Amino acid sequence: DDIDIVLRCLSEKSFSLVVLGASGDLAKKKTYPALYALYRQGLLPPTVNIVGYARSAMSDLDFRNHLQTKVLRGGSAEQLAHFLARCHYVSGLYDSRQAFSNLNDVLLNLERDSTSGPSANRLFYFAIPPSIYADVAGALQPTCLSTTGWNRVIVEKPFGRDMASFQELNHVLMDHFHEEQIYRIDHYLGKEMVQNLLTVRFGNGVFEPLWNRHYIQSVVITFKEDLDLQGRGGYFDHYGIIRDIMQNHLAQILSLVAMEPPATLDAEDIRDEKVKVLKSIDPLTLDRLVVGQFGPDEAKTRGGYLDDATVPQDSVTPTFAAAVLYVNNSRWEGVPFILKCGKGLNERKAEVRIRFKSVPGRLYRDRAPPNELVLRVQPDEAIYLKLVTKKPGLSTSLLQSELDLTYKSRGYPVQYDAYERLILDAIRGDHYLFVRTDELEWSWRIFTPVLHRLESERIQPFIYPFGIRSPPEADELIARHGYTGPSAGYEWKPPSGASL
Amino acid sequence: DDIDIVLRCLSEKSFSLVVLGASGDLAKKKTYPALYALYRQGLLPPTVNIVGYARSAMSDLDFRNHLQTKVLRGGSAEQLAHFLARCHYVSGLYDSRQAFSNLNDVLLNLERDSTSGPSANRLFYFAIPPSIYADVAGALQPTCLSTTGWNRVIVEKPFGRDMASFQELNHVLMDHFHEEQIYRIDHYLGKEMVQNLLTVRFGNGVFEPLWNRHYIQSVVITFKEDLDLQGRGGYFDHYGIIRDIMQNHLAQILSLVAMEPPATLDAEDIRDEKVKVLKSIDPLTLDRLVVGQFGPDEAKTRGGYLDDATVPQDSVTPTFAAAVLYVNNSRWEGVPFILKCGKGLNERKAEVRIRFKSVPGRLYRDRAPPNELVLRVQPDEAIYLKLVTKKPGLSTSLLQSELDLTYKSRGYPVQYDAYERLILDAIRGDHYLFVRTDELEWSWRIFTPVLHRLESERIQPFIYPFGIRSPPEADELIARHGYTGPSAGYEWKPPSGASL
Amino acid sequence: DDIDIVLRCLSEKSFSLVVLGASGDLAKKKTYPALYALYRQGLLPPTVNIVGYARSAMSDLDFRNHLQTKVLRGGSAEQLAHFLARCHYVSGLYDSRQAFSNLNDVLLNLERDSTSGPSANRLFYFAIPPSIYADVAGALQPTCLSTTGWNRVIVEKPFGRDMASFQELNHVLMDHFHEEQIYRIDHYLGKEMVQNLLTVRFGNGVFEPLWNRHYIQSVVITFKEDLDLQGRGGYFDHYGIIRDIMQNHLAQILSLVAMEPPATLDAEDIRDEKVKVLKSIDPLTLDRLVVGQFGPDEAKTRGGYLDDATVPQDSVTPTFAAAVLYVNNSRWEGVPFILKCGKGLNERKAEVRIRFKSVPGRLYRDRAPPNELVLRVQPDEAIYLKLVTKKPGLSTSLLQSELDLTYKSRGYPVQYDAYERLILDAIRGDHYLFVRTDELEWSWRIFTPVLHRLESERIQPFIYPFGIRSPPEADELIARHGYTGPSAGYEWKPPSGASL
Amino acid sequence: DDIDIVLRCLSEKSFSLVVLGASGDLAKKKTYPALYALYRQGLLPPTVNIVGYARSAMSDLDFRNHLQTKVLRGGSAEQLAHFLARCHYVSGLYDSRQAFSNLNDVLLNLERDSTSGPSANRLFYFAIPPSIYADVAGALQPTCLSTTGWNRVIVEKPFGRDMASFQELNHVLMDHFHEEQIYRIDHYLGKEMVQNLLTVRFGNGVFEPLWNRHYIQSVVITFKEDLDLQGRGGYFDHYGIIRDIMQNHLAQILSLVAMEPPATLDAEDIRDEKVKVLKSIDPLTLDRLVVGQFGPDEAKTRGGYLDDATVPQDSVTPTFAAAVLYVNNSRWEGVPFILKCGKGLNERKAEVRIRFKSVPGRLYRDRAPPNELVLRVQPDEAIYLKLVTKKPGLSTSLLQSELDLTYKSRGYPVQYDAYERLILDAIRGDHYLFVRTDELEWSWRIFTPVLHRLESERIQPFIYPFGIRSPPEADELIARHGYTGPSAGYEWKPPSGASL
Repeated sequence: DDIDIVLRCLSEKSFSLVVLGASGDLAKKKTYPALYALYRQGLLPPTVNIVGYARSAMSDLDFRNHLQTKVLRGGSAEQLAHFLARCHYVSGLYDSRQAFSNLNDVLLNLERDSTSGPSANRLFYFAIPPSIYADVAGALQPTCLSTTGWNRVIVEKPFGRDMASFQELNHVLMDHFHEEQIYRIDHYLGKEMVQNLLTVRFGNGVFEPLWNRHYIQSVVITFKEDLDLQGRGGYFDHYGIIRDIMQNHLAQILSLVAMEPPATLDAEDIRDEKVKVLKSIDPLTLDRLVVGQFGPDEAKTRGGYLDDATVPQDSVTPTFAAAVLYVNNSRWEGVPFILKCGKGLNERKAEVRIRFKSVPGRLYRDRAPPNELVLRVQPDEAIYLKLVTKKPGLSTSLLQSELDLTYKSRGYPVQYDAYERLILDAIRGDHYLFVRTDELEWSWRIFTPVLHRLESERIQPFIYPFGIRSPPEADELIARHGYTGPSAGYEWKPPSGASL
Repeated sequence: DDIDIVLRCLSEKSFSLVVLGASGDLAKKKTYPALYALYRQGLLPPTVNIVGYARSAMSDLDFRNHLQTKVLRGGSAEQLAHFLARCHYVSGLYDSRQAFSNLNDVLLNLERDSTSGPSANRLFYFAIPPSIYADVAGALQPTCLSTTGWNRVIVEKPFGRDMASFQELNHVLMDHFHEEQIYRIDHYLGKEMVQNLLTVRFGNGVFEPLWNRHYIQSVVITFKEDLDLQGRGGYFDHYGIIRDIMQNHLAQILSLVAMEPPATLDAEDIRDEKVKVLKSIDPLTLDRLVVGQFGPDEAKTRGGYLDDATVPQDSVTPTFAAAVLYVNNSRWEGVPFILKCGKGLNERKAEVRIRFKSVPGRLYRDRAPPNELVLRVQPDEAIYLKLVTKKPGLSTSLLQSELDLTYKSRGYPVQYDAYERLILDAIRGDHYLFVRTDELEWSWRIFTPVLHRLESERIQPFIYPFGIRSPPEADELIARHGYTGPSAGYEWKPPSGASL
Repeated sequence: DDIDIVLRCLSEKSFSLVVLGASGDLAKKKTYPALYALYRQGLLPPTVNIVGYARSAMSDLDFRNHLQTKVLRGGSAEQLAHFLARCHYVSGLYDSRQAFSNLNDVLLNLERDSTSGPSANRLFYFAIPPSIYADVAGALQPTCLSTTGWNRVIVEKPFGRDMASFQELNHVLMDHFHEEQIYRIDHYLGKEMVQNLLTVRFGNGVFEPLWNRHYIQSVVITFKEDLDLQGRGGYFDHYGIIRDIMQNHLAQILSLVAMEPPATLDAEDIRDEKVKVLKSIDPLTLDRLVVGQFGPDEAKTRGGYLDDATVPQDSVTPTFAAAVLYVNNSRWEGVPFILKCGKGLNERKAEVRIRFKSVPGRLYRDRAPPNELVLRVQPDEAIYLKLVTKKPGLSTSLLQSELDLTYKSRGYPVQYDAYERLILDAIRGDHYLFVRTDELEWSWRIFTPVLHRLESERIQPFIYPFGIRSPPEADELIARHGYTGPSAGYEWKPPSGASL
Repeated sequence: DDIDIVLRCLSEKSFSLVVLGASGDLAKKKTYPALYALYRQGLLPPTVNIVGYARSAMSDLDFRNHLQTKVLRGGSAEQLAHFLARCHYVSGLYDSRQAFSNLNDVLLNLERDSTSGPSANRLFYFAIPPSIYADVAGALQPTCLSTTGWNRVIVEKPFGRDMASFQELNHVLMDHFHEEQIYRIDHYLGKEMVQNLLTVRFGNGVFEPLWNRHYIQSVVITFKEDLDLQGRGGYFDHYGIIRDIMQNHLAQILSLVAMEPPATLDAEDIRDEKVKVLKSIDPLTLDRLVVGQFGPDEAKTRGGYLDDATVPQDSVTPTFAAAVLYVNNSRWEGVPFILKCGKGLNERKAEVRIRFKSVPGRLYRDRAPPNELVLRVQPDEAIYLKLVTKKPGLSTSLLQSELDLTYKSRGYPVQYDAYERLILDAIRGDHYLFVRTDELEWSWRIFTPVLHRLESERIQPFIYPFGIRSPPEADELIARHGYTGPSAGYEWKPPSGASL
């Protein structure tokens, strides 16, 4: 169906893609590389016009030179040349109707000249800070929308700092666009394994019967980074790990893991079910949360969070958080959903771990460790099911092994970036992997109270050494909720690990 | 627990193992090689005495020479020498009390001389045809049993040709031994994957909830050989594939797949549950059975069954059979258990295939092939679960893949023969992998009526070309019972196939 | 919580209830009697003003006299006097802004004089034909809404004749009111047992685990009348039984029986789930529908449908219909939902019958009839569960009996009319028992195609004798879908039947 | 099938029924009244000979006179005369072969004279104390068995005081009779509702899916008496309530409630499953047991247990016990089975109460009391299912009611005594309601250790006032295991209670 995707894109109209904030970091790191990758795979219409917009005065040529030297990687010389030829640049202020009217003229000209004809669809990628959304939307909407096709906007997190600021920010957009025109990116939804979640759950008869409180002991959703702030200290300190990772990425994954089967696979039906999950979760409270901040590593070879020059000396911003949520419905009552995320840990890893209950009865009591189904999001996408077998040979003892599907070792390359997937879907008009207003509202409802308490009471995070596997404070919290950490002495290794 | 197994063997008594029929084919191919393998692994007591008994006059030295040159393989020269030193030979008639009294004297002498002292346990391995069981048991029991330890006998199939002949044969044994002294070998029960069945089912919380008519569409138990008669035509033609394979090996595997959780893992509790399964199966009828006989291969490069010189020209003995059984209880009502076995097919393979029902609802209707859990018994032991995932990449279509545990590729060698397992268990006194009288009675109850009809009515088997994958007559039968054969276009390959 | 209900009504504002079409049949038969009953039970604020509006010129006194003599029954003289004192009358055209402006003045005066003060909530009851909705809504909305409290409207079926006419009719309302202001009555939702459905399903741990395709064989929703047209032939012939009963009442009950547990018991969450059910049902096709028309009774003592003077001589309008629908989701796949409704049958009865599957296995095969859970909506509200017991006494045979909860025999009177419930809920602002736009759209999507075929092809209904229990054509249809009618020889009788 | 039962009895042979201990209490209170009742119902062969045997010298006439005046009640004069004519009497010592040889002569004469001919079946009813079983069995077996038909013996509790004494007592019987000849009465198994247990469980599709740890919170099996010792103090003090009621009656009921579906309804298959349950229960420990002894009632109008002249002054024998057992298998893990029994309580009642878990999720959290299925064994046989409904009327609150099947109010009389059922089954050769050796062994294995501790440590029972509903010590124990007693404010009343 790859062809199919392309064909929908190659509809009878022209297609203009406007990157607002074209000279910024996001555009450079994510938007343009993804567009270039799509272009090379034939997943953008060959006649697409990609128009960068920013304040800096630049010619098309300057901008293409910038792209060529600093942004785009890979592809043949011919591919690069063709792509650059589709790239244009317009400079202007973000709050000026005049400037956007000028942008509109440029677009109209490009569209008129296109072999696809003057009718056009337009996609506006907001690669700009939320603080100027109001200006941009207010200036753009009356001047710059296509009157001959659809108009869509892509926006990205942060979606506010709490319920109130989200709603304020959102109203700015909703004043000028309809919900169905807005594509809010949570780029974790573009990850292969996250997309795969619904297929694995609902496309396999063997999982759904097990997917409930009778058989699942707990669900652990983990996001770990082995990095420090990477120079983003100013931004990060304003948000903290809960807003940066937990409230959006982890809450989104949770809702995909926990949702009921939707009526259809249409985006709205799926998002309805995700909202239903979030609605069933009570707001997080302090007794079900621990927050930490990384200090120097154990060898004292590097500084901690507070040693970062971009961070206030007395910051209580958490770089690690673990929370336990419960989904109060008949499927999930009593099953802890454990969200863990942190920077400055021992590895980079994101995964969903479904731990099943121990086998009942006394046949294998205390001998058979519980089954786990693990969806490894990154790195090295894999699905594996830990299971117990007879230890091969003349022994009669047990062995914990796993049924495994590691993508690389099976020859399934996953070589695209989440942004490619998401931009492609926005072009295709599929909202499935984008976040709806009510999803964010219900999610903020869960996290806002505890965020306010952390800040108003300046609650001190515990300090953990940079590079630790998991802070004991987190282990203790989740042990209280019945999850006892990885089976002692067991470590998953991809079956043909050497080749990874 | 390997040590533990050895320690139980190394109890405070002497241990004598008598191989009746020591010069025969079974002793040569299976019994002595297995004993030698156990000995080398330290799983026989170092002071064991292995006494061969047969009619041919031979000295210990002759017999050891025979073993050394024609029977035993592998091991170091030292291991071989030590093992041979434990081997003795006594010749005698099978129906002579005097001869067995003589054997007893030999045993008493060996035991008296043993460092383990005169008290002794004795294991009698009946590597002799059933036709002389009566003579042997009648002569042996009054003369040759240990009075200072346990006595056990190992016997092997064929266990009769039908209910009546089984019962007659069995009474011969039961007149002289108690049920708990008798170890009836079905060597398929010694296969790694068959032993593993209960562990996989009851040691993993994820399988038992799925293991019923709500989720399982069918169970296929397959035994295929790519061989012809290998010179056993006389024997085989008297029995046919149903008696040779289906009534014992496949029925045993079926009962392990279908049984309820036992009260404990003790042998009697497990065998009680196996009997309960067989009791719940109605006798097989002709409308749920097809039988075939291999003809020449398609290229006519080799003859068919009737071309074998050892086979009667008008034989209607089946070399292939497929049958559908139903277990009439609340777990299995309506689920076909499909037993397939045959010689002269395209490959050598034995496996259990649990096919799950298609996912209900319309989300993935007609798109997601059903899950299957496959336990591959031979060759290349493996467990794999076929499942549906999103096709990796920017596509949104589905891909059928599998979660896999192939023993070899995971580095789990299975290097023992089933006979080693079984002899070891008989020494340990564990009946779990041996067949109880009532199991055989209930199994014969299932197959006897249809066997009698096949023979009394001389029902002609269909003829299939040697080397075929599966006769269409079998496919048609099982399709009528709702099983539609392998998903088109899908073939399992071990994930790192090259290394197998 | 009755008090609680009243207290919400007795809020700090005045409350005006306007009955549009006050002199019509609906107002007379349903609206005013229900208001009077509520008033007598203290469930209307004592200061309510009930203002009738219609074209006929009448004074308040005339109208009160009309109510007293022709409409209101029961209550004490004092209750009647008090109620009548709250009743007012305004005459005017339905399409005149001036007239409604006049109505507004009357309301303002009444409210200003009320002890509850000038701020007021207003409820407009559209007891008028849909054909004048456009006029009324257009004239009322700009002139007559309260600016100091909420405004709500109650409307009733028919909600169009098909998808297109419903949407047209609905737009008329939606142009002037928001969805949350509109209360669409399906009066079956006001029946005690229908309201009870969610409580029985979700308030009892024992039902939900059984409520799915694994255990339920079929669901039969029946509506039978023993009446003929009762003079409504003109109206009825225009609609027919499918539109009159099946598309609304039965489809509503179906969606309550089949829905997933909602996130909360809030009206919108419940209606979301009802929509999800309807969305999962494919449009009805002719092969899953039978339609009939009653003829004379068997004794020829009365005429049939076509003998009714108000009916066209060649009418093919069905007075009976049976349809089989499937809910294509993972809970219900393969379970037939059988909807049966008809006039001119042997009795007046409405019930929901959940038939469970027969017990699996052979213990009671062919001996134990399947369990059924019956919710009897009318008459004689009851819940009963048919079950099998040992026949009491020294016999060992079985007996079919039932666990019973008949409201009357348990001393639970159900003495209110559905309209009381619904008007009360509209006042309380609870939409749970009212029908949302999308419910009607999805329901019309199911029934419109087959209605169009019946009419465009003038498909002849079979003729059944007036007074029959169930036409054999219906029995044959549903037998094809696996439901075999009531167990032979079994008839439910309320346990203490004599007293009913 | 009543006729059928009779017909099996009326086989072609004579039938002799010997009551050993014919002049004793059991014979008087239970055996002869039951035989008379069966005779009157035509459920004994008209040619039966009932031969009483005891030490006292009496003629047939004396004995018939004794029966007529002191034992038999009801029936017509003609029925009585006919029955008495079938009654004979033989006196003799219990340890004399000569005496039993004499009894044999009498039986042979009666059988020879019978119209049914000299071939005869014989049933020996041991209405004698266990202390003389050895003598009786030793003298009877060589002299008095029929050689022309079957021989059976009925024995009654007590079956020992613990494992060792049971095994000793049992060997006495097993030395002379086969297991299949022995019918051990637990008269609770003859109660209508206890017999009904398997039918309710396995004959109704709706119960089995709920019958497990996922849905059942606890099972309470209660036996209460409002009586004191009734002069049996000597006997009772030697045994205590655990041996008198819990180890046999309640353990039997437990095994019927908890057992897996048997392969068939044959007695041996059912008893196999009952044993499997008992095998899965760990021996009871003191921490899961409370024992009490009744004292004077609260008003001090009557004495307590120790005030009974037949009871030792320092007795620590319990008259009340509550125990919590767990069945360690996959169906029941974690579900407490609560056994409660006592004398001197507020009422006479025996019932099985299956409490289901509360509904999961938050829809009805804290509002809906859990469902309970109650099987009332005595008095007033009933089955009822407590459930939650909407409170009828305009309220929206909940009401706890029940689906009910009270036998009397439904017109199902239960007018036979358990002994009639059991004697009839012994005659029919159906072991289903009799207790097998291994059942008693596994049951004693559960209770013996705690009984030994109670006695060796002379553990003091708590004292409760005569006439109490339930001692708080018991409530506290079972609350610790998650069962919180009857829902506050709820009391079951048979729906038409007045008529009971």
